[in-house]
Amino acid sequence: MVTMDSVAGLLGSWSDLGGVAAIAAGVRAGSLDAVELAERALRRAEEVAELGAVVHLDRAGALAAAAQVGGGALAGVPVLVKEIIAVEGMPFTCGSRVFAGRVADADADVVRAARAAGAVIIGLSHSHEFAYGCTGTSNAAGPCRNPHDPSLMTGGSSAGAAAAVAAGIVPLAIGTDTAGSVRIPAALCGVVGAKPARGTLPCGGVFPLSTSLDHVGVLAGTVADATHAVAALSGADPAGPADTGEAPRIGVLAGLGERAPEVDVAFRAALDALVAAGAEVVDVPFPEWDAFTGVVGDVQGPEAAATHATVMAQQPDDYQPDVLERLRAAATIPGWRYVQALARMAALRDAADHALDGVDAVLLPTVPVPAPPLDATHAGCVPVREALLSNTRPANVTGHPAISLPLPTPGPPVGLQVIAHDDRRAFRTAGWIEQTLGRQ
Amino acid sequence: MVTMDSVAGLLGSWSDLGGVAAIAAGVRAGSLDAVELAERALRRAEEVAELGAVVHLDRAGALAAAAQVGGGALAGVPVLVKEIIAVEGMPFTCGSRVFAGRVADADADVVRAARAAGAVIIGLSHSHEFAYGCTGTSNAAGPCRNPHDPSLMTGGSSAGAAAAVAAGIVPLAIGTDTAGSVRIPAALCGVVGAKPARGTLPCGGVFPLSTSLDHVGVLAGTVADATHAVAALSGADPAGPADTGEAPRIGVLAGLGERAPEVDVAFRAALDALVAAGAEVVDVPFPEWDAFTGVVGDVQGPEAAATHATVMAQQPDDYQPDVLERLRAAATIPGWRYVQALARMAALRDAADHALDGVDAVLLPTVPVPAPPLDATHAGCVPVREALLSNTRPANVTGHPAISLPLPTPGPPVGLQVIAHDDRRAFRTAGWIEQTLGRQ
Repeated sequence: MVTMDSVAGLLGSWSDLGGVAAIAAGVRAGSLDAVELAERALRRAEEVAELGAVVHLDRAGALAAAAQVGGGALAGVPVLVKEIIAVEGMPFTCGSRVFAGRVADADADVVRAARAAGAVIIGLSHSHEFAYGCTGTSNAAGPCRNPHDPSLMTGGSSAGAAAAVAAGIVPLAIGTDTAGSVRIPAALCGVVGAKPARGTLPCGGVFPLSTSLDHVGVLAGTVADATHAVAALSGADPAGPADTGEAPRIGVLAGLGERAPEVDVAFRAALDALVAAGAEVVDVPFPEWDAFTGVVGDVQGPEAAATHATVMAQQPDDYQPDVLERLRAAATIPGWRYVQALARMAALRDAADHALDGVDAVLLPTVPVPAPPLDATHAGCVPVREALLSNTRPANVTGHPAISLPLPTPGPPVGLQVIAHDDRRAFRTAGWIEQTLGRQ
Repeated sequence: MVTMDSVAGLLGSWSDLGGVAAIAAGVRAGSLDAVELAERALRRAEEVAELGAVVHLDRAGALAAAAQVGGGALAGVPVLVKEIIAVEGMPFTCGSRVFAGRVADADADVVRAARAAGAVIIGLSHSHEFAYGCTGTSNAAGPCRNPHDPSLMTGGSSAGAAAAVAAGIVPLAIGTDTAGSVRIPAALCGVVGAKPARGTLPCGGVFPLSTSLDHVGVLAGTVADATHAVAALSGADPAGPADTGEAPRIGVLAGLGERAPEVDVAFRAALDALVAAGAEVVDVPFPEWDAFTGVVGDVQGPEAAATHATVMAQQPDDYQPDVLERLRAAATIPGWRYVQALARMAALRDAADHALDGVDAVLLPTVPVPAPPLDATHAGCVPVREALLSNTRPANVTGHPAISLPLPTPGPPVGLQVIAHDDRRAFRTAGWIEQTLGRQ
């Protein structure tokens, strides 16, 4: 068991430099030095190595890249990439012994975009093995730990990305989200996690979990940073032209499951603050909500099992036990259920598109419980996976953008999820909320 | 057991009127009367009723439609529609007790196109129950019988369409083809069956068997008639502008399975005749051929089982035994195999596209055996379904156009299948072959 007694100050931030856009502007203007920024990130990664957030640190590559930074919207910004996303020349084991020794021979599309924007990739961040888990506890290298309390889960599967931003290793990390894997760890670690609309960021070169549900997303310290990063990586500003600052029309969903008291308090307080600032709050009925659970299981399972079928048969003992168990269960789902689930997925997408079109965004807690202990099997009486995923998977089924941002709380982090009809509404509304709650 | 002793002259044809285009031209010019044409079709349907080709005859509707025919490329042409294709106001039972009493409330897209072109729909043709079989033997109304010998299968699932054209009930019938269901009965009944490229004819309003593989096609007496019909139904002449008459470059596939001697003799004789007429014959390697079998099973099964899951559970005894058995086996195919099969399907499509691009068409026997007896379970030592489907299913996986036309034979019908890169090459090459063999 790793102890954290030797690690002082697990939480950190790059906010002293004014955010991602300001860092890149400073590098472009010569007031910041990309090599010094890379050194800072590398140093911090080593300081908090015991979190397990970084699974591969590329000191030489990072410094070489930093020395060559020209311009770009992410000029000199130190970045970590989730280890299921290919980075040329770096390990591509997806956190698994199954692929021990495997190295990526080309950059994933989003990595190419990051480099083109001037980002400096310092290494790889921890993923739940093959991204097939939402706790961040299963990886050939061990679990990832929450900087707020290393005895707690980070959530996953983009566990290391969230922990690294929360610990101040990097101001920006690139993750993936198939049922909540960017937003869940963002919520539990107190950072921002943004999964833009399906298609905004490319999945080429990402090891697939479920091709129908996979999304690429970003983790950062603020909504402003995440918005800037998505613009840089996609080539289109998700928030669109200058905002009017008008207060949004916000939807809330009735009939969601139980939530922990501290989550409920933080969520209600935030809604009150938004209303006080002028937001209109309306009920958004969505009776199909409960259907998302089955659809995700029946779509994700067969797609994951199809990817792993051969290797599962050859190297079962090289998988983490929880992942192998999940894959074996997935392999038993009959094809006709998958076919029906794809049809329901299309219907749910249409229903959500209609429901979301009447508001700027729907708000709900990203995760209905705070970070559970690393070895938790349940949160209250709900299995921990079910608790973590319940509010995030719908946006993977529908492909709508969803952003988690941290709420002001006296205790452990609580995430507010903003789901919207399109990227513009999602990023604008999340930005307005961040500014409004920040002014409190 | 139905006996055919009372039925003299089971074979028939509309060739005395010069084909579909000539019939429509005659109706438009006033030299032929659409009502008399409808009467002729209705009379013939009753004469050979014991074939089981027609499962619903709409005398009143046909005569009313005939009386109102204006212009159109199919003006006054009597047509039968396969009973799994919706025709407003007609039964839509798909040949099954499962849907006893069900009536279609709107026309399928292809039926709407047929009516718009002036066709007169006289009724519905026999389908193997839910089109889930290639023998034409299983239907709530009993088997369909081969006009060449009523003790033999028609093949299926568009059994009645082929039998009706072969018996001279109609000059044109509309069928569907998911793994060979237009081409197999066309081959065994000695008529032309054309499955244009996927997308040429719309599937809207067709009861689905396998949405990834389903195609609409036509059955007629000649390639010229089928070409005219596809042009009329799709709005685009599949053969394109005036032909140069140049002899085609023809590919043959190595490594196909066994074929019956009478099929082999007819196929070789046809190739010789085509070469004598100037065709160039080249070998087309296609090592992936054997992969089609598994792909069709793994794609069609889950899609069919998804459509039938609820009804299968509620009314198992209302299915024909062979169809229920097949559906139950299909329901056990795991989802991961379906996902893998879809990926292989895309790869096979690309490989076939490449292989076909070097020739005008590939030729092979449509079915490697002549029509088996109605109660056959095997053709030689091969299960009868496997024998019937072996050469037709590839074009459903790849979506390429495939046309079966009858070869000159002294004995039972043998079909020649023309598979091409695109509709133009398929219909032109089939037309050239028809003309060349007809001149012998």
